[in-house]
Amino acid sequence: MLKEAVFHRAMSPFVYKYDEKTIHIRLQTKKNDVEHVELIWGDPYDWHTENPDDADWNFDPSKANYWNTFETPMTRSGSDELFDYWFIDVIPPFRRLRYGFRLHDGQSSHVFTERGWFDEKPLDDTGYYFCVPYLNKVDVFHAPDWVKDTVWYQIFPDRFANGDPANDPAGTLPWNSTEPTTTNLFGGDFQGVIDKIDYLVELGVTGIYFCPIFEAKSNHKYDTIDYLEIDPQFGTKEKFKELVDLLHEKGIRIMLDAVFNHAGFHHKAFADIREHGSNSSYRDWFHLRNFPLVTEPMPNYDTFAFVPEMPKFNTENPEVKAYLLHVARYWVEEFGIDGWRLDVANEVDHAFWRDFRNVVKEANPDTYILGEIWHDSQEWLLGDQFDAVMNYPFTNAALNFFALDKTTASAYANDMSHVLFSNTMNVNEVTFNLIGSHDTPRALTRAGNDKNKMRLLLLSMLTFSGSPVIYYGDEIGLDGDQDPGCRKCMPWDPAEQDLNLLMYTKHLLHLRSHHKTLANHGHISFVHADDETNTIVMRRMSQDGTYYVYFNNSNHQATIPAPQAGQGMDLFSNTPLPSLDVTLAPYTGTIIQVI
Amino acid sequence: MLKEAVFHRAMSPFVYKYDEKTIHIRLQTKKNDVEHVELIWGDPYDWHTENPDDADWNFDPSKANYWNTFETPMTRSGSDELFDYWFIDVIPPFRRLRYGFRLHDGQSSHVFTERGWFDEKPLDDTGYYFCVPYLNKVDVFHAPDWVKDTVWYQIFPDRFANGDPANDPAGTLPWNSTEPTTTNLFGGDFQGVIDKIDYLVELGVTGIYFCPIFEAKSNHKYDTIDYLEIDPQFGTKEKFKELVDLLHEKGIRIMLDAVFNHAGFHHKAFADIREHGSNSSYRDWFHLRNFPLVTEPMPNYDTFAFVPEMPKFNTENPEVKAYLLHVARYWVEEFGIDGWRLDVANEVDHAFWRDFRNVVKEANPDTYILGEIWHDSQEWLLGDQFDAVMNYPFTNAALNFFALDKTTASAYANDMSHVLFSNTMNVNEVTFNLIGSHDTPRALTRAGNDKNKMRLLLLSMLTFSGSPVIYYGDEIGLDGDQDPGCRKCMPWDPAEQDLNLLMYTKHLLHLRSHHKTLANHGHISFVHADDETNTIVMRRMSQDGTYYVYFNNSNHQATIPAPQAGQGMDLFSNTPLPSLDVTLAPYTGTIIQVI
Repeated sequence: MLKEAVFHRAMSPFVYKYDEKTIHIRLQTKKNDVEHVELIWGDPYDWHTENPDDADWNFDPSKANYWNTFETPMTRSGSDELFDYWFIDVIPPFRRLRYGFRLHDGQSSHVFTERGWFDEKPLDDTGYYFCVPYLNKVDVFHAPDWVKDTVWYQIFPDRFANGDPANDPAGTLPWNSTEPTTTNLFGGDFQGVIDKIDYLVELGVTGIYFCPIFEAKSNHKYDTIDYLEIDPQFGTKEKFKELVDLLHEKGIRIMLDAVFNHAGFHHKAFADIREHGSNSSYRDWFHLRNFPLVTEPMPNYDTFAFVPEMPKFNTENPEVKAYLLHVARYWVEEFGIDGWRLDVANEVDHAFWRDFRNVVKEANPDTYILGEIWHDSQEWLLGDQFDAVMNYPFTNAALNFFALDKTTASAYANDMSHVLFSNTMNVNEVTFNLIGSHDTPRALTRAGNDKNKMRLLLLSMLTFSGSPVIYYGDEIGLDGDQDPGCRKCMPWDPAEQDLNLLMYTKHLLHLRSHHKTLANHGHISFVHADDETNTIVMRRMSQDGTYYVYFNNSNHQATIPAPQAGQGMDLFSNTPLPSLDVTLAPYTGTIIQVI
Repeated sequence: MLKEAVFHRAMSPFVYKYDEKTIHIRLQTKKNDVEHVELIWGDPYDWHTENPDDADWNFDPSKANYWNTFETPMTRSGSDELFDYWFIDVIPPFRRLRYGFRLHDGQSSHVFTERGWFDEKPLDDTGYYFCVPYLNKVDVFHAPDWVKDTVWYQIFPDRFANGDPANDPAGTLPWNSTEPTTTNLFGGDFQGVIDKIDYLVELGVTGIYFCPIFEAKSNHKYDTIDYLEIDPQFGTKEKFKELVDLLHEKGIRIMLDAVFNHAGFHHKAFADIREHGSNSSYRDWFHLRNFPLVTEPMPNYDTFAFVPEMPKFNTENPEVKAYLLHVARYWVEEFGIDGWRLDVANEVDHAFWRDFRNVVKEANPDTYILGEIWHDSQEWLLGDQFDAVMNYPFTNAALNFFALDKTTASAYANDMSHVLFSNTMNVNEVTFNLIGSHDTPRALTRAGNDKNKMRLLLLSMLTFSGSPVIYYGDEIGLDGDQDPGCRKCMPWDPAEQDLNLLMYTKHLLHLRSHHKTLANHGHISFVHADDETNTIVMRRMSQDGTYYVYFNNSNHQATIPAPQAGQGMDLFSNTPLPSLDVTLAPYTGTIIQVI
């Protein structure tokens, strides 16, 4: 047994409170090194005497002489390239838990505890063991329940639909008349979204994520001028309220973009500093290194990246904090928005986000808080800050396999398992899965404009655990490279839309909403990953049923052996299958329900 | 190279903000497997072009074509039984950091990133790398500076000194007239502490930790009746204020015990429920399972352990929270106490402790917050909750080697290194190191009443990083087994005190206070650990000097080879040494300063 590869620490995501009653525990071991594992566990104060007649609940070890433990098998629930991951859920009777692990490698067994390794479990002291002291309800990570069943649609406001030419700013170009640049404008607005609500309802999405809509100078609006005003090119506050209410009537939630890391160059506070220098009453609102402010050769104040137009807020300043928290509360309370997506969330301090959570959840406990973080996000996902992050690790794994052919079937299974085991299950259920955004090349472009690969990408995302998002236009075959290319106008002429892809996307969304196990109610495991044929089978399983999602990511027809005995139903064709052997055309996939 | 043994995640204590400018990074590898490691690092937005003339700070990867990195060697700063630990501190110029590791095993080198392993560092995307997005000052773990230089003295109030017989409760026994029991009383009080202040000053301690002093029923006072009143057996509020002021005049801080996990059976809220049952307005103050309340065969409400007299507070109830936070603020504001020690801290919810920190630090930012946690305490030590915990992992390592002969010299070095690498350096500098308390047998008793072993225990604790505590009486050779035995009356007749041990303790405290490197201003490493002779040498090194602490934990005289060339000064005997070879009598140790 390779003890050096065994990892567990009493911290998330290795152990966490899943709900008010349940603790989840994970253990990492070297891949294929350990045959089975039992969890050794008990209540820390459940001491017994050796004479069973004297056994009682007794906290005093001087009277009792051994700690009463249970042993329960863990499940090998996944693997990545180097490791196996073992899982168990436990409901401790008194909400307190001490635990260790008994690992078997076929030759022998060893006990792993917080104090290291033993040949046999020590029972003279619970101090050896890992500890969940008490399951306090308030410490359970809890995102809004509705997020688990939501499929998002991301709208870049200037480019979705122009419903009201009257609010077009000067210089607005005719819709889709040219390629997007970093500066041009096409007149997309709220009325355009209102006009297209039926399209969204028919598509089957249940949430809209809007890129910034507040007053700003650029076309992307990430350089805010006024956080309390709608940018006039999108409409009025009244129009926005009308949109929110209409969406809610249709069962569609709405999330806005909170660009709180940095202001825009023309925000009143930064403008005041530019005008009054060190005499400005706003001088402590930013991280200024000296005066006067300069932008060349690089800004002498902290910015997003090195972009002079995006001066970083000093969110430790109580005035700044109060101002931004007022904004956070205002749009929830006054307009009933359902979520905040936090731009550059990882560069803002944790203390700010803790207070942000308190303010927003006080305004409406059902508000979703989503951070833009591209990397390992543990620090923000402990329950006191965000509900979720944009799951770019998922994006990378999906694109590397289906779009870029950079990885093989087994690497895809490893990568996706790694994504799942890097976060708690509470987080995985509400994480914001995407295959592209306004910050990346479009998925179809990454896939070399291969619509079959695009279908496989959609299939992988829409059958995975999380709260997936469709970037506007992906569903009708819109392409585009890195920003600004990925921000083209949505084509509304059906002749310019790939209606087959649209129907496929609708079908997938329909299946996801009617078979909850495919969304966030089923465990995931990869039961087949063949590098020869580049085929994969992912199982989703819950008490409601068992489903297999088959992928053939090769240019050959492939027959994938049945992952289990039994009959199935192909959910796309609604065809009963006598067995679960499936033959797939090149670059196709399907979903089979076991019947 | 054993890749499975390599561990790093972008979370504390593997990476953390040490101060406003500095990031600490640690990497774990299999022991003796890796020869050297470099940190690969850079600012995430520092992209260059291949033509050096075009190099500039440029956030746009579309213009620049590679990420600019630095490589800096890491230090192998310690080892435990299975692993080596590598360390580096980095000051990123723009407070942002992306980083990975280059590991060399003599044969080859490999690059370890957040996305796994590579043969060479990828420079086309910073997304591969681990991330410290931005060093926000407010997120830096920061305990009060004074704690680093404090040596505590723990007083069990009924047993330290009886200065005012007038407040002795009925049934008080003559001082030290019999062994302590779970119920008897000896009349210790505040006047007794006031009378002995000169003793404490001469001893050299600079902080008092008082076990509970609030009104309660038991002799240990962990079953609070009223958190806003002093128990009359200790004196009045006026007398307490007099004590605090006198201690402060002498440069001694004072910390009280906050028993906020549970109330006492006779606390007004619980008494009200016992009287009025489900009609009590306090019914939501506790975790009650049904009515009427019963205590047999076990309580039908949550308690500390299964002790009916200690009903667990529902700290999620806003009324309870407001009440306890009022208490926390009251004693800081009204009496000027310098710290709170939090009883059973791990069973109270994190949300409560975050608010507790805010309230207490608002009352006085220099207040020390110390949690009673016996196990791995990462969750509480991220900067938003506690400043420190009672360092029982240190206690176990010290006792197992010096007192109990359960471990060897190398195991001691491994165990202590494990303790250090389990927490951040910020935490290690203020952690509350102890060799015994009111909750354990006394150190001397654990050491089989061997005074030499007791000296080695004191030497190990008082030359280690942390804020150490002497449990009253340990310094004069008081013994005693598990509670109640460890709570004997302090003998004040010099004939009953071990004056040699007292002088040794004073000498150690004197050396610690005059050679800051021995306290919290020096790095620790174990430079010698010989299982044959059971000898150890620990190095403390800072810019102020290099010190070696020698331990001979065997019943033979031992000559320990010089850990480096040069001359030294034996700090106990004030003797210059021509070399750092040291011969030690059985069960002795010493401290040598390199000169």
